[in-house]
Amino acid sequence: MIRFSCDYSEGAHPRIIDRLAATNFEQTPGYGTDEHCDAARGYISKLCGVPTERIHFLVGGTQTNFTLIAAALRPYEGVIAAETGHINVHETGAVEATGHKVIALPGIDGKLNAAAVEAAFVDHENDETHEHIVKPALVYISESTEAGTVYSLSEIKAIYDAAHRHGARLYIDGARLGYAMASSDCDFDLKQLAGVCDAFYIGGTKVGALFGEALVIVDETLNRDFRYMIKQRGGMLAKGRLLGIQFETLFEDGLYFEISKHAVAMAMRVRDAFKSAGCAFFQDSSTNQQFPLVTPELKARLAKDFAFEHWGWKDGLEAVRFCTSWATTEEQVSALERALRA
Amino acid sequence: MIRFSCDYSEGAHPRIIDRLAATNFEQTPGYGTDEHCDAARGYISKLCGVPTERIHFLVGGTQTNFTLIAAALRPYEGVIAAETGHINVHETGAVEATGHKVIALPGIDGKLNAAAVEAAFVDHENDETHEHIVKPALVYISESTEAGTVYSLSEIKAIYDAAHRHGARLYIDGARLGYAMASSDCDFDLKQLAGVCDAFYIGGTKVGALFGEALVIVDETLNRDFRYMIKQRGGMLAKGRLLGIQFETLFEDGLYFEISKHAVAMAMRVRDAFKSAGCAFFQDSSTNQQFPLVTPELKARLAKDFAFEHWGWKDGLEAVRFCTSWATTEEQVSALERALRA
Amino acid sequence: MIRFSCDYSEGAHPRIIDRLAATNFEQTPGYGTDEHCDAARGYISKLCGVPTERIHFLVGGTQTNFTLIAAALRPYEGVIAAETGHINVHETGAVEATGHKVIALPGIDGKLNAAAVEAAFVDHENDETHEHIVKPALVYISESTEAGTVYSLSEIKAIYDAAHRHGARLYIDGARLGYAMASSDCDFDLKQLAGVCDAFYIGGTKVGALFGEALVIVDETLNRDFRYMIKQRGGMLAKGRLLGIQFETLFEDGLYFEISKHAVAMAMRVRDAFKSAGCAFFQDSSTNQQFPLVTPELKARLAKDFAFEHWGWKDGLEAVRFCTSWATTEEQVSALERALRA
Amino acid sequence: MIRFSCDYSEGAHPRIIDRLAATNFEQTPGYGTDEHCDAARGYISKLCGVPTERIHFLVGGTQTNFTLIAAALRPYEGVIAAETGHINVHETGAVEATGHKVIALPGIDGKLNAAAVEAAFVDHENDETHEHIVKPALVYISESTEAGTVYSLSEIKAIYDAAHRHGARLYIDGARLGYAMASSDCDFDLKQLAGVCDAFYIGGTKVGALFGEALVIVDETLNRDFRYMIKQRGGMLAKGRLLGIQFETLFEDGLYFEISKHAVAMAMRVRDAFKSAGCAFFQDSSTNQQFPLVTPELKARLAKDFAFEHWGWKDGLEAVRFCTSWATTEEQVSALERALRA
Repeated sequence: MIRFSCDYSEGAHPRIIDRLAATNFEQTPGYGTDEHCDAARGYISKLCGVPTERIHFLVGGTQTNFTLIAAALRPYEGVIAAETGHINVHETGAVEATGHKVIALPGIDGKLNAAAVEAAFVDHENDETHEHIVKPALVYISESTEAGTVYSLSEIKAIYDAAHRHGARLYIDGARLGYAMASSDCDFDLKQLAGVCDAFYIGGTKVGALFGEALVIVDETLNRDFRYMIKQRGGMLAKGRLLGIQFETLFEDGLYFEISKHAVAMAMRVRDAFKSAGCAFFQDSSTNQQFPLVTPELKARLAKDFAFEHWGWKDGLEAVRFCTSWATTEEQVSALERALRA
Repeated sequence: MIRFSCDYSEGAHPRIIDRLAATNFEQTPGYGTDEHCDAARGYISKLCGVPTERIHFLVGGTQTNFTLIAAALRPYEGVIAAETGHINVHETGAVEATGHKVIALPGIDGKLNAAAVEAAFVDHENDETHEHIVKPALVYISESTEAGTVYSLSEIKAIYDAAHRHGARLYIDGARLGYAMASSDCDFDLKQLAGVCDAFYIGGTKVGALFGEALVIVDETLNRDFRYMIKQRGGMLAKGRLLGIQFETLFEDGLYFEISKHAVAMAMRVRDAFKSAGCAFFQDSSTNQQFPLVTPELKARLAKDFAFEHWGWKDGLEAVRFCTSWATTEEQVSALERALRA
Repeated sequence: MIRFSCDYSEGAHPRIIDRLAATNFEQTPGYGTDEHCDAARGYISKLCGVPTERIHFLVGGTQTNFTLIAAALRPYEGVIAAETGHINVHETGAVEATGHKVIALPGIDGKLNAAAVEAAFVDHENDETHEHIVKPALVYISESTEAGTVYSLSEIKAIYDAAHRHGARLYIDGARLGYAMASSDCDFDLKQLAGVCDAFYIGGTKVGALFGEALVIVDETLNRDFRYMIKQRGGMLAKGRLLGIQFETLFEDGLYFEISKHAVAMAMRVRDAFKSAGCAFFQDSSTNQQFPLVTPELKARLAKDFAFEHWGWKDGLEAVRFCTSWATTEEQVSALERALRA
Repeated sequence: MIRFSCDYSEGAHPRIIDRLAATNFEQTPGYGTDEHCDAARGYISKLCGVPTERIHFLVGGTQTNFTLIAAALRPYEGVIAAETGHINVHETGAVEATGHKVIALPGIDGKLNAAAVEAAFVDHENDETHEHIVKPALVYISESTEAGTVYSLSEIKAIYDAAHRHGARLYIDGARLGYAMASSDCDFDLKQLAGVCDAFYIGGTKVGALFGEALVIVDETLNRDFRYMIKQRGGMLAKGRLLGIQFETLFEDGLYFEISKHAVAMAMRVRDAFKSAGCAFFQDSSTNQQFPLVTPELKARLAKDFAFEHWGWKDGLEAVRFCTSWATTEEQVSALERALRA
């Protein structure tokens, strides 16, 4: 059985495992104050143009999302997200558990639209009873989206500008940021990204790390006392060095970008293989997630040797999700190609 | 200026004011443990067939909603509501502030549909990742709805049955329950209503009282320790007698129902007057809220002498809301009729 | 049975009842935007030297406390209070339910000490692990205290200065502010009080009103969007005029102060009567609450005709609480005096 | 510099590192549903006599504490803890952030006393105003305590019985459970421990793992839907296998107990070394934390070569904390012994 069901089926890039082993008996202070964390923050700081003290390492994506969002909002404020946004559908109400409404707007191909965001702010402000309505004060987008699509820099900037025109902020969930940046649709680097948002995270869990997300808080005000937030919300790892070591490895010489490119190259082969087999797609994706539409027969045949996920329905056909990752091998993809040719 | 803009423009029914004056220097214990509260609970208990200890008086509607909902849900559970439901749009995220997601479903004429509710439960249970999704555990409906419409007993029962098939409960926001029960569309009494839900409140604020809502908790389990909840959420009035006196007055001899009927009769005159003036409606309503579609000219003309609210747009015309209440006089309606005839 | 058990046994000052009756059929907009609220805010604004837009009316004390405190704190911040503070012991964890720790410090006679407050701030800042500890960001005191004692202006100022030295704020629970200001121990007026805190409320529930508290937010930043907070936390009364009418009546010509003085005068007679009967006190009080120490025999004898509360134990004797209020009559006190002389 | 400052200075036991490397390219499903987690749950299940489905792996201690506590309590309920309890002082108000009060009781040597716990329940129940007071519904103890002390089985059982007499539960924070069980003061095994509590966790972070805590929920009711709680609170690791692999390694053949014994043996050498140097102790400890009282001179001398923590003051001397762990070497302790002999 070859698993294409998600992008977290394996452990970590071998260089990370090696580094963990090599540093295992170093004695370091805890909670992210060690030299490995310092080094990792330094690398990321340079790439993003954001001071090191605004870079934080947390353990997982849901945790990073609710910690940042809870820090950004006053009690009566809410966060705008696409209806398909991860915080709206797949985090068991973690944002609401911090007291805040997720204001869900319809998206297109998983993406929020700047005009719709602008309208949401304007509608709220113009409502005579606005004090009776949750105040939108943050916009959440995912890059790449849950649908595998990628926002261009100008699309992000348009949303950022809309938010800032109304005293709100923009936060980007980068669980799959590596894969977005490896996409042919991507037209920005980390520094440019940092220029059009108030905070974003660089996902490690799905891109080569055992676990861990690097949160970059661009807005200095939002960064105030942020370590209290991390501790309170359970994200401050005692052996913080584990996060430092992983991000050090991923960012000291571009490994993060290299393995992201590999994953997307594998995804393009997957895409082409389904195309060649005559399959249409639930939705175009230039990143590591592919959503072919399959007949019951094809699904059954593939399910013998491959693990993948149900995604939805379109035009009478079932959409399934095939994910590649940094760990996907040429051989695994070749096996899928052969199966689709059969 | 005559105000039809809402159903809480005046004070209280004069019998309530008189009773408050007459009892003013009685000395009573606090927090709802006095004889007036006992008497009021007794009247309501008889009408609903629910033991007195499951009847509680709170100060306002938003407060009653979030207190009951917070008591009903475990942390990862959410409440299903129509997109237009008051808790979803007009309570500044009060439910989310208690930690729970409002799971908004599209409604029809402000009403949830039992089949859609059933589907929401089934979809959640069938989802392989259901632990990553808020668990629906309560359904919220308003009777009458925010759109002035009324659920029939069988419609409520169908939603109740759907909820109970899935281990969930049904709660009814009765801010305008009096007006619903005075509608020609209503086919139940309080005892029957109590038979098809787990909790509901009988609204006082909009139906004759200065303020106050009588919460009836049908489900004994849900009632456990409920007074702790009321106190914690700010709903336990020190001089609880004020609530007792008001509900005593409203329910000792049917005043609540009588004044509700008056309000709806006035609303029917309002409806007929707009019809006669050639107006269509945003939506049919058999209760105290009417939503005529008006031209800019008509709106401007009416606005000189009457206060009313903007509601929305339909077919190129503006919908406005005219509310009647227990306090609406024949003269006020006659004045509107004259204005519409002009 | 004459009730001295609390200061909310009766309704409201008759002028308030009259005013409610007289205004009953006025039509007003809701939610505190009516002319009565405007007038009341005007009177209080003048007395306090705080702009009207920073004055808000809420329904009850617990609600006022948790709404203000939740607005003042970021998620990882806590509020310092005396161990005996109302928010720490008698609000069913309402502050914690908003997500914040009450940092309880030992008090003396119910009062916090500025040096202890200063030390709490310093200790937190000096702790190397301070990010692992709730950050104190607000100080809560009650005036008069739950123990009947009164802070002098300089005592309050010392706490205020300590808080401000550490970037924190001071909030004063004035549930019994009228009775504090009528005490011989009081050396400030409302304007002076507003000069040594960031927010305080003028209690109506216990001082002449049916219900209601007037919150005065001195700090403009803290006032931002505060009406959203009130609505979300259930404190925005639909018929807000009820609060306006009451505070208008209490403050248009000094009624609030006058009835407070009466209550304290009655309390002094109560105090003297117990003294004459040879009783010592759990604690000295110059306000409307008196805490005599009684033998079982005296307690039993008094309990036949008077209601009062158990308070605690001291020197082998039971402390009980006798409260007077605006409503206490000379006759009631005379009856108690006779009983004590017997 | 040799670090005795905490018990999480190094990585993980080498067998864990090896196992992570060996399994790195296995493909597994996520979120704790893999075979390694199954195996680990199996080992722990056997040791504790608790079904596997009630054993959960979370990432860290604070997270485990607030997730379990939030699951155990209704909104108005609180958790009793010693004043020195980790949840009361060193988790940045994480429990309060879930809405619940930590009811702090004075402890003796870091331990709660069953009689004091019983009294807290009785006092609450007997209070006439109990609805105004947070209801104690859970007791939290740490084993070993933050002070290095160990509860005996009968001490735990007495607290457990007190809680159960009052409808409450007992939860044990086992961040250092291994070290407690290696103490000469310990008189129970895991099965016996499971018999006197409703939930406890077996700490991995401080006892040989990179990170991770194994939560054992004895009470079936408390376990209902617990995976929703873990996901919502950020504790559900995508690559759950990392936790499975670690606990598999620690429990397949007793490694956890073996390395715990080593740590305590090293701590006893540390203790004896300070004793021989004439030092008294802040408090006796039979576990891996030692709290000698040191003069400024001794402190300064030790600080040149060793890292340790300030703990407090006693009898005019400073108490410092020296921690050993599974990773402490004989050589490190010998170096300390030499320094103390000097």
